[in-house]
Amino acid sequence: MKSDIQIAQEAKMLPIVEVAKKIGLTEDDLELYGKYKAKVSLDVWERVKDKPCGKLILVTAINPTPAGEGKTTTTVGLGQALNRVGKTAIIALREPSLGPSFGVKGGAAGGGYSQVVPMEDINLHFTGDIHAVSTAHNLLAALIDNHLHQGNELNIDPRQIIWRRVVDLNDRALRNVIIGLGGKANGVPRETGFDISVASEIMACLCLAKDLMDLKERFKRMIVAYTYDGKPVTADDLKAAGSLALLMKDAIKPNLVQTLENTPAFIHGGPFANIAHGTNSLMATQMGLRLADYMVTEAGFGADLGAEKFFNIVCRYGNMKPDAVVIVATIRALKNHGGVPKDKLGEVNMEALEKGVANLEKQLENVQKFGLPVVVALNEFPTDTQEEVDLVVKKCNALGAEVAVSQVWAKGGAGGEDLARKVIAAAEKPSSFKFLYELDMPIKAKIEKIATEIYGAKGVIYAPKAEKDIAKIEELGYGNLPICMAKTQFSLSDNPNLKGRPTGFEITIREAKVSAGAGFIVAYAGEIMTMPGLPKVPAAEKIDILPSGEIVGLF
Amino acid sequence: MKSDIQIAQEAKMLPIVEVAKKIGLTEDDLELYGKYKAKVSLDVWERVKDKPCGKLILVTAINPTPAGEGKTTTTVGLGQALNRVGKTAIIALREPSLGPSFGVKGGAAGGGYSQVVPMEDINLHFTGDIHAVSTAHNLLAALIDNHLHQGNELNIDPRQIIWRRVVDLNDRALRNVIIGLGGKANGVPRETGFDISVASEIMACLCLAKDLMDLKERFKRMIVAYTYDGKPVTADDLKAAGSLALLMKDAIKPNLVQTLENTPAFIHGGPFANIAHGTNSLMATQMGLRLADYMVTEAGFGADLGAEKFFNIVCRYGNMKPDAVVIVATIRALKNHGGVPKDKLGEVNMEALEKGVANLEKQLENVQKFGLPVVVALNEFPTDTQEEVDLVVKKCNALGAEVAVSQVWAKGGAGGEDLARKVIAAAEKPSSFKFLYELDMPIKAKIEKIATEIYGAKGVIYAPKAEKDIAKIEELGYGNLPICMAKTQFSLSDNPNLKGRPTGFEITIREAKVSAGAGFIVAYAGEIMTMPGLPKVPAAEKIDILPSGEIVGLF
Repeated sequence: MKSDIQIAQEAKMLPIVEVAKKIGLTEDDLELYGKYKAKVSLDVWERVKDKPCGKLILVTAINPTPAGEGKTTTTVGLGQALNRVGKTAIIALREPSLGPSFGVKGGAAGGGYSQVVPMEDINLHFTGDIHAVSTAHNLLAALIDNHLHQGNELNIDPRQIIWRRVVDLNDRALRNVIIGLGGKANGVPRETGFDISVASEIMACLCLAKDLMDLKERFKRMIVAYTYDGKPVTADDLKAAGSLALLMKDAIKPNLVQTLENTPAFIHGGPFANIAHGTNSLMATQMGLRLADYMVTEAGFGADLGAEKFFNIVCRYGNMKPDAVVIVATIRALKNHGGVPKDKLGEVNMEALEKGVANLEKQLENVQKFGLPVVVALNEFPTDTQEEVDLVVKKCNALGAEVAVSQVWAKGGAGGEDLARKVIAAAEKPSSFKFLYELDMPIKAKIEKIATEIYGAKGVIYAPKAEKDIAKIEELGYGNLPICMAKTQFSLSDNPNLKGRPTGFEITIREAKVSAGAGFIVAYAGEIMTMPGLPKVPAAEKIDILPSGEIVGLF
Repeated sequence: MKSDIQIAQEAKMLPIVEVAKKIGLTEDDLELYGKYKAKVSLDVWERVKDKPCGKLILVTAINPTPAGEGKTTTTVGLGQALNRVGKTAIIALREPSLGPSFGVKGGAAGGGYSQVVPMEDINLHFTGDIHAVSTAHNLLAALIDNHLHQGNELNIDPRQIIWRRVVDLNDRALRNVIIGLGGKANGVPRETGFDISVASEIMACLCLAKDLMDLKERFKRMIVAYTYDGKPVTADDLKAAGSLALLMKDAIKPNLVQTLENTPAFIHGGPFANIAHGTNSLMATQMGLRLADYMVTEAGFGADLGAEKFFNIVCRYGNMKPDAVVIVATIRALKNHGGVPKDKLGEVNMEALEKGVANLEKQLENVQKFGLPVVVALNEFPTDTQEEVDLVVKKCNALGAEVAVSQVWAKGGAGGEDLARKVIAAAEKPSSFKFLYELDMPIKAKIEKIATEIYGAKGVIYAPKAEKDIAKIEELGYGNLPICMAKTQFSLSDNPNLKGRPTGFEITIREAKVSAGAGFIVAYAGEIMTMPGLPKVPAAEKIDILPSGEIVGLF
């Protein structure tokens, strides 16, 4: 069997100029990055913004196993399949971080015959957007420490600097550091740390901004520290927003690439799906909506996290209304939700499947609460049996959702035609999209609505720190922002081991932070790792580029 | 008077495809980065490598004042002027680091009417080469700390890890840090620090490599640490070289841009001029030599550092022979060398000028020791008088060097025609290039030859650490590498306050390190700052991008 990188390197790519033509873009609309990648000029947005929108399809998933359920692969395959059945379609994905590529095998460019290409570039530096995020983030950090060093006119409390530094790699030794050592000439000593770049609020801002000037305004509002008397210090107080915006002047332009079947693909922005909202840039989605019949995007993690945030945060800021939702599931993961251990997922176990399918049912009900039609994409594995598939179909149909068996990994778009037709049928139904909560509700009421109605919790417990944080956020006037839940993706609850559709549990909120630039309040239901580590044998040891130019070990 | 950024933004750029045509490159030879930047495919090198070479001109300078004497501006202007007088010319420059752009006003893209454009892109992320360097450097650092964390099979002494981390910003608080804090899950605590990215050995390797496979071999040889029993640990021991090479697969391709007068310009690589060799990539210079009549490149700092290293390190590794050298001087700086303080440099002071011109004379004699013809480019200032110019001309002529008054800042190529004609005449003279020292000489003998013959020192003093370092380097088998002196650029001596042509001084070598990947031994004559700080009011505070797209404050 061929590896993803082998399939990708054998792809028959069209020049990106040809791909762009399919969606009405000319060579003048593009800034080429080589022959197969381009940034789309923001002039295009000015030209199309008043045009009618195509259908907006969100791809989300059940609570995944650590291997993932094939959400990106399904998104790519669905885009290809829509084109095959006669619709113009664009897909929109997040940009992958470099860290995981050199850590554990894996990537974020789809798989098998449903990948975006040039896969190796997309998974390496791509068009430099994440490097721009890192640079802007770290420039702001340098300005903060320089401010302390040069006399601290703003009265910043060095113990209350919340703006850390970033690097787009897995580097656990940087999680907790002391900087400013070496005496008076070398800054003010203090504790801080590094996160992976995609966790930066700069990235979240990029992905929610309407344009470069809106991005600059968001940067101005970002809180970087508090003074000794508890007042927020913003990037604007440090006069940093102009420089940060300049550093992002190209990063803000959506990147256009293609799938293995030459379907146009926007890959732009990549915020975390826990401490941020986990979807590609609003600019790419908005532009794509006006350039094709169908715009297919995906939300990070499961529907309880990704879809909820897409609806309540992204659609709200973008004034968008989704037309249909695809929930990706695998028989294997459903059995895991029913209690089957990982090494036994290839065996038929109808009892466990019946129990585990409850996770899918709950995610399905949740999406319906937003007033949206749902199609379940059952991502096929060779071990799946007809009996198992039938059970899932029966359960979903009972809740009014169609199910399509998706073979896009093995067959590309041809393996997704049934899914595409069912998505089209769903998107053509009347829908009545509504938010889960209103912004003017108290912070706790918003959190409780998500916890009880989406997660199925019986209530919310607030740790003393969370109580204090929430009171402070409301006191500072940020109480009317939407909520960004930071929670494990492996369970509907805040306990990764609680599989299936748990009930009777409580969600514990440990702390809360405001991302005033991005425009949401992060509520932490558990420890969130914002800087991954490398494994014992990192993928980096096997990755290589040969004299022939062939790349090995990249997935 | 217009600012550099105003002049640059008004430039009439040609599409880079048109610029490339002037030197025989087709669209297929380019990987476009927008309309005005491109990477040149390495296939071009395969096609041209056996072609005859054009003339190689090195632009260097007297010991500069902190403002610089206009070396880059002269290089750009000379390239433009050569084209005006009927020669095809390519210039090659280093890529600017982002750090200084946001620190103190300044850049590395020339000035006035002799700039490379698009100046704002060149001074920001450009084609991402420096970001690739940072990523490769920091991946190697993460692999080292991961190795310690995962059991330290290689027996690395955490106190002897010499591979630091990098960021391409001025950030003094990162000079000395402690990492790995926070308990067992978060790595092994140890002291380290960050340098600015252009100080990375990855950058030095990039700029001396022949091709990607040679670069990978250089990466393998880089020493990152020593074991508890004093043995070197290399990037190869960590199995990192393949990943690092993959991260550099695009960075290795020379970048093509243009000057304000559409002269082709390679801007590729940017190593430090103290701890590294300070010239653009050998690949860009080698390629350019085969594509035009004249290839004009510049070496960092003054001729005592930059030119000496270009001859002894770069020309040796590249098997190149320069045809002529341009030494840039200003009447103002020569008066400063004669003892005039900075606020009085606009006043005529013939006595000080006569004294200060000795610095130029020494640099001129030094270049002649390498067997090369010299032209002095007197970079004109409005305060210069004819009497002052005449004195410099008389002194230089006495040493057999022509002098041209250069007005390229104010007039572009038209202000450099006299310089261009004199450079052509010099380059057409027979030359007898020779190295200053042979590689098989002992390390100390090589250092002493540079110190006495180039700097004019009476001898060299070695600190005990330097004695130990040198013995260890020879014991490890690296003794036959060329020397890379790390010394102040402001004086021929190792004391920045010793102006003019000092005599009777000694050079103190404090320590020595081997850069086994780059392939040189760094001898430290003084403290070298590898991580700059930001000033009290950083340029970042004034830099902005306006709703119109206009960029302000960038220079």
